[in-house]
Amino acid sequence: KMTKKIIKLTVRDVRFPTSLEQHGSDAMHTDPDYSVAYVVIETDQGMQGYGLTFTVGRGTEIVVCAVEALSALVVGKSLEEIVSDFRGFYRLLTSDGQMRWIGPEKGVIQLATAAVLNAVWDLWARSEGKPLWKLLVDMDPRKLISCIDFRYITDALTEEEALDILVKAQTGKQQRVDQMLKEGYPAYTTSCAWLGYSDQLLKQLCTDALNDGWTKFKVKVGADLKDDIRRCSLIRQMIGPHNTLMIDANQRWDVGEAITWVTRLAEYKPLWIEEPTSPDDILGHAAISKALAPLGIGVATGEQCHNRVMFKQFLQASALQFVQIDSCRLGSVNENLAVLLMAHKFKVPVCPHAGGVGLCELVQHLILFDYISVSASLDNRMCEFVDHLHQHFRSPVVIQNAHYMPPKDPGYSCEMLESSVQTHQYPQGQVWKKLQ
Amino acid sequence: KMTKKIIKLTVRDVRFPTSLEQHGSDAMHTDPDYSVAYVVIETDQGMQGYGLTFTVGRGTEIVVCAVEALSALVVGKSLEEIVSDFRGFYRLLTSDGQMRWIGPEKGVIQLATAAVLNAVWDLWARSEGKPLWKLLVDMDPRKLISCIDFRYITDALTEEEALDILVKAQTGKQQRVDQMLKEGYPAYTTSCAWLGYSDQLLKQLCTDALNDGWTKFKVKVGADLKDDIRRCSLIRQMIGPHNTLMIDANQRWDVGEAITWVTRLAEYKPLWIEEPTSPDDILGHAAISKALAPLGIGVATGEQCHNRVMFKQFLQASALQFVQIDSCRLGSVNENLAVLLMAHKFKVPVCPHAGGVGLCELVQHLILFDYISVSASLDNRMCEFVDHLHQHFRSPVVIQNAHYMPPKDPGYSCEMLESSVQTHQYPQGQVWKKLQ
Repeated sequence: KMTKKIIKLTVRDVRFPTSLEQHGSDAMHTDPDYSVAYVVIETDQGMQGYGLTFTVGRGTEIVVCAVEALSALVVGKSLEEIVSDFRGFYRLLTSDGQMRWIGPEKGVIQLATAAVLNAVWDLWARSEGKPLWKLLVDMDPRKLISCIDFRYITDALTEEEALDILVKAQTGKQQRVDQMLKEGYPAYTTSCAWLGYSDQLLKQLCTDALNDGWTKFKVKVGADLKDDIRRCSLIRQMIGPHNTLMIDANQRWDVGEAITWVTRLAEYKPLWIEEPTSPDDILGHAAISKALAPLGIGVATGEQCHNRVMFKQFLQASALQFVQIDSCRLGSVNENLAVLLMAHKFKVPVCPHAGGVGLCELVQHLILFDYISVSASLDNRMCEFVDHLHQHFRSPVVIQNAHYMPPKDPGYSCEMLESSVQTHQYPQGQVWKKLQ
Repeated sequence: KMTKKIIKLTVRDVRFPTSLEQHGSDAMHTDPDYSVAYVVIETDQGMQGYGLTFTVGRGTEIVVCAVEALSALVVGKSLEEIVSDFRGFYRLLTSDGQMRWIGPEKGVIQLATAAVLNAVWDLWARSEGKPLWKLLVDMDPRKLISCIDFRYITDALTEEEALDILVKAQTGKQQRVDQMLKEGYPAYTTSCAWLGYSDQLLKQLCTDALNDGWTKFKVKVGADLKDDIRRCSLIRQMIGPHNTLMIDANQRWDVGEAITWVTRLAEYKPLWIEEPTSPDDILGHAAISKALAPLGIGVATGEQCHNRVMFKQFLQASALQFVQIDSCRLGSVNENLAVLLMAHKFKVPVCPHAGGVGLCELVQHLILFDYISVSASLDNRMCEFVDHLHQHFRSPVVIQNAHYMPPKDPGYSCEMLESSVQTHQYPQGQVWKKLQ
């Protein structure tokens, strides 16, 4: 049997100058250059695994530095060795006796962990000849559980409860696989209403999106209340009363301010307010949730929720009504599995964060798994979609009628075109040289 | 008037091979090499400011990389420009539209922010010819408040409430200054009972410490219950029933496990259990606090509490009974001021984390300020002391009869001896070359 020993890890700083056109602009990130720390691992048999974590420009070099520091824990291990005790390997990376000090399990070092482990999962899926979602869906529940580090979450979800959830969801699994292959997973669009866009551009993008079958739209808010009222009114007018509107403040407010501001936007009937305040403020989100519940507005958060311990508390405190997992903020598939299972136990729907570079490509696998093998429900569930930068991927997402169609190529879908990587490498790539 | 423009920032990776003798070993950090990212800033008039953040070995290079990324936001600014709107400058560093993504305000980027701002505060104190604690104590309350970023904490502490606390504490201030200059601030020792120490070494160190006047002792626990019982029993026997014992698990347990384990150690009458579980688990700490209260054991945490939003919630949830601020984990003096004021409002004593490299030198300034200008109380208050590596500092801490004596030299006390820095630079310093 082949050992698939990992003999090499490379990481590159790849940036796209998206700030030039205000793509991705929000109330706290006004000039993002969508970027990735891009990881390639290689086995002694010449097989490759691709992983990445998403960033927004400056600071990507710090994540690259952190990936290099983790590299010593990966190179020399075989894929078999890793996946035969994936929980142990996860803890090796996240609880290194020296490096955990600079986290632990948060910020730069956790983003780097995600990039590395995403590459390991990609390698595993490729070695099985399956797209990642199918690898997960086909995996024995006990094996799945053995990938999760339950440290610090057993007061909310035990290993036995997790196993029980997965075993129960085996019923009807094949039916849901078939349904997904046929219909895809419902998506919503954030591409129409970035904060830096003009009203005219917003109108045009809305019209186009409606024509393409989109029914769920997210608007960025939080910089200026008058502006927000105008923009929300405009988009609600464009999409009509029956389509879904969500609003996203990207952490702009304090707790009291969030409640006042969102109350002023309630007449536009948003389904949720996303990231109303600090991503660390569990009790603040709980207070906001409580205040907005009578208005029929839920709270959504998670794209900057840095680990399972935080999600555990958001769920315990009823601080969110929509769980927005992120494929690169959490510690890869391993930690996302823990969060999907906790969300199911607490009966809160998961609506992933996506967009950026590669987040759509990655997270579609997780949400397909969630539907097929955990939640078995599409109620109040949808996955974010942003129509940028997909052309740089070897297996870009396929959207049909506002649904994510399940990926078919083996792996985790985040292999980038080598030409794109080279052209956008920072600072030496052609694109950046031209801008200097 | 001199502008004191900052024209240069350098940062170095300085490591001490403490793991060779198990100094600093605990249940989660079994082999720490005490280290710092060491920052020097220089003005156009040749004045220097020194700052650092503490790390435990591998990963220090990542923090160094982050300091370099922040450097562009500092170099070119004058000291006057910074301190005339310190809140604005704080937010410039912590909320950069691109770099905040890899935090925000947590992990590597926050540790780097601390190192940089510690150097700015050192420069400020030197330029006023005062030790930092005296700069703070003499500062007008309104000016102090203008250094704090209240974003995300106004639901717990408003600017007006903070000002009110400082104004009230003006009464009796000079008396407390005199008292501190005479008696010093009470300290406890962690040097006797690191996890890797033998019973014989522990006994000897305890005897020495008692002879030197120490009355408060901390023991590391959490790796093995039988071991803990033996060690706690031994140390309680050594120090007698009237001295104070604290225990520290360094995040080893899940919530339920923490309660069971500490209950088994209750007969040794620890004042607190420190870091029983994940530093992110506010609700977990609240559950542990509630369970241990009937046993008379409090919960202490904070050395890995990454920002004011987390401390706010720990206080709101009654999740700790002792606030352990850290001079390098939080965003320097600015963020520590916010936490001291919140702790006072919630009537919870502050007992800082120290040790490592330079943490004692730094945090003594903050706790002196807390006593003189905020809490005006010594009840249940003490500052950690660890007797390692002080010889590498130009103005090392002075301990007399188990009390921190107020520093007299201008600045923030973290200038290191240049020879120590060069010898311990990683990996090219002599100490490390010899070990290779």
